[in-house]
Amino acid sequence: MQKDTDSLLLRPIAYARNGFTDKFGIPRQSRPDSQIETRIVLEPAYNHEEALRGIESYSHLWLVWGFSQVPATNEVSLTVRPPRLGGNRRVGVFATRSPFRPNPLGITSVRLIRVESPQTEENAKRWQLIVAGADVLDGTPIYDIKPYLPYSDAHTEATNGLAGNTHDYHLRVLWGDEDDVFSTLSPNKVTTWTKAKEDLTEILSQDPRPAYQHDPDRIYGLDYAGWNIQFRVQKNTLYVLKVTSIRQ
Amino acid sequence: MQKDTDSLLLRPIAYARNGFTDKFGIPRQSRPDSQIETRIVLEPAYNHEEALRGIESYSHLWLVWGFSQVPATNEVSLTVRPPRLGGNRRVGVFATRSPFRPNPLGITSVRLIRVESPQTEENAKRWQLIVAGADVLDGTPIYDIKPYLPYSDAHTEATNGLAGNTHDYHLRVLWGDEDDVFSTLSPNKVTTWTKAKEDLTEILSQDPRPAYQHDPDRIYGLDYAGWNIQFRVQKNTLYVLKVTSIRQ
Repeated sequence: MQKDTDSLLLRPIAYARNGFTDKFGIPRQSRPDSQIETRIVLEPAYNHEEALRGIESYSHLWLVWGFSQVPATNEVSLTVRPPRLGGNRRVGVFATRSPFRPNPLGITSVRLIRVESPQTEENAKRWQLIVAGADVLDGTPIYDIKPYLPYSDAHTEATNGLAGNTHDYHLRVLWGDEDDVFSTLSPNKVTTWTKAKEDLTEILSQDPRPAYQHDPDRIYGLDYAGWNIQFRVQKNTLYVLKVTSIRQ
Repeated sequence: MQKDTDSLLLRPIAYARNGFTDKFGIPRQSRPDSQIETRIVLEPAYNHEEALRGIESYSHLWLVWGFSQVPATNEVSLTVRPPRLGGNRRVGVFATRSPFRPNPLGITSVRLIRVESPQTEENAKRWQLIVAGADVLDGTPIYDIKPYLPYSDAHTEATNGLAGNTHDYHLRVLWGDEDDVFSTLSPNKVTTWTKAKEDLTEILSQDPRPAYQHDPDRIYGLDYAGWNIQFRVQKNTLYVLKVTSIRQ
């Protein structure tokens, strides 16, 4: 039944820009209440106000994007071992949201915070959407943006299936005394840090450790928005041990 | 920022099979309560039970598919004129679900009715998902199947924006006397017709006429599952005038 013409070559229409320079720490799936912002920066061919006309009338959008960090390969396994299931149970690739899939596409619903015109921002010449709740790495290629239509997309009665209620679990995040924690906070970084700390509190509370690695003595590291965080988790509390500026 | 490697070549992992042989009549977006079934038939490379393992634990799935009937072109307009807005108001392509988009991908949430093994069906050698609510043509290439996760995908508070409450509108469907309506119903088609009639009652009640064409005297035609239906709409009632078998 397959025809040659049914292959489809996608080209990015935009790129995502955010603090997730490191896979470790990215939320597993979008969270409706996330405050973490991502900029969706239109590529030159679509960098026109008209392409977004009317988009502010929607509160939520879909992003269709590429798992760009997954190495391209001709061999795709039919099953994957989701970390959240302990990493040793195999389930069908079409029964998971795993990145390792035949066509490495992700879909994520996000809240639209605002549309920014090219004039107002450092990334000077591009139209941008500022969205919250995107579970994507910095630099992720975006292949499509669509309005979220609750009458066809929202199914509260749907079952979570194998994924279960993975989001009931939250850690308490203890930052400790900043004098102890910071090694290199210079005065001109205070503003950046204030925003990053808000995001990081959300990120850390979701327990970014690998799901099957829960060693209370181990020190974990996480990069976000130019900061490296070192932490330890004991029972339901995450202790931030050290914060270091890693860029600029 | 764009790199060559960010282009992504998709190949179908499955094809959709249903009664929608004609674009006219396809629901505009998936409807949560739709009873119309579509078979998702896995392509040979993925035609293994393992690829679907665990999928029955989900009530809803996402299909990522191609608008395969949209002619490929290098010129994509940045705006489209959605029929539901009267056909003369231009909105940004990323503010609509229009098929005429830079990367012609559609996403649709569907209910999973059942998984069928290759042994039980006429389409003998393929694993199949039977789903309800797919707004896709017969023969549509499917590029991905993912579980629907209500904790990240269901946003009942989202605004319908420009799309508005387009589904509040329903027509009453009057079939009339079958002796008058049918021209060629042979006894061996009665079973097929019974199922097709259920689907058609749903399809016709959603008013398949082009949104900006509401001529009460005009006779419209619609093909579905091997049947051609002729009808007329006056006020809120759709009158079926003629039913003809068009294949086999």
